[in-house]
Amino acid sequence: MSPSENCVFCRIVQGAIPCLKIHEDSAVLAFLDIGPLADGHLLVIPKEHFERPEQMSEEAFGGVMKVVPRLAKAVLRATGADAYNVLLNAGRAASQEVMHLHVHVIPRRHGDGLGYRWLAKRYEAGRGERLAQEVLQALKSV
Amino acid sequence: MSPSENCVFCRIVQGAIPCLKIHEDSAVLAFLDIGPLADGHLLVIPKEHFERPEQMSEEAFGGVMKVVPRLAKAVLRATGADAYNVLLNAGRAASQEVMHLHVHVIPRRHGDGLGYRWLAKRYEAGRGERLAQEVLQALKSV
Repeated sequence: MSPSENCVFCRIVQGAIPCLKIHEDSAVLAFLDIGPLADGHLLVIPKEHFERPEQMSEEAFGGVMKVVPRLAKAVLRATGADAYNVLLNAGRAASQEVMHLHVHVIPRRHGDGLGYRWLAKRYEAGRGERLAQEVLQALKSV
Repeated sequence: MSPSENCVFCRIVQGAIPCLKIHEDSAVLAFLDIGPLADGHLLVIPKEHFERPEQMSEEAFGGVMKVVPRLAKAVLRATGADAYNVLLNAGRAASQEVMHLHVHVIPRRHGDGLGYRWLAKRYEAGRGERLAQEVLQALKSV
């Protein structure tokens, strides 16, 4: 997709806005989030403008994600954290704020107050089975 | 790595524990989380037992992640949600509870009360630059 003049991440890719760069290859850029949840909070983005994973080929999305383990290892080593979350927000209702796909790598420590709001529930009898069938049906046409 | 008799996800891979299967290929299994945060909450796992992304090759980790966009699209179609989070918890301090790597795909709707606790901060002057150097240094030896 075309880069947008209004997209802050496209402008970072173009070099028009500076970043604290951690990794760059032909398709992927990684840099420190300037509004971090924890020291070393990274953003990993495709250089090409995509809003969400569904707009990318499997290979292109896998290519963005595959750099995460090595970058996470370096961030843990540099910060002394021993755990991390990898988080992608796809869509406004999922808290996506910059509409250029980005993957957060967030270093974690016990008691840091971060993490996902874990409001788990249970399916009523039969609901999970029906839902699985509906997802399998949908998979045939996506 | 070897499967563990004590690992619930290895036992699901082996078929010893049932699951509501959504996708299976030679390396990856995806199924409905039985304690979902939202209808259609998926888990995507490597069939081989790895605890964390850093233990996997780039290709193997990318191979797990690359199925996410298509599965997410099917889950959104089946549930009517229009957004989702992709979340991986690596390590106990990051809320990893089952120590077999798993990726959550969590359908989202406005006002659902889910999401990540977004306690963002700012780096003090010079801190981000120093940290970037430290991560770049660490990258040379990971």
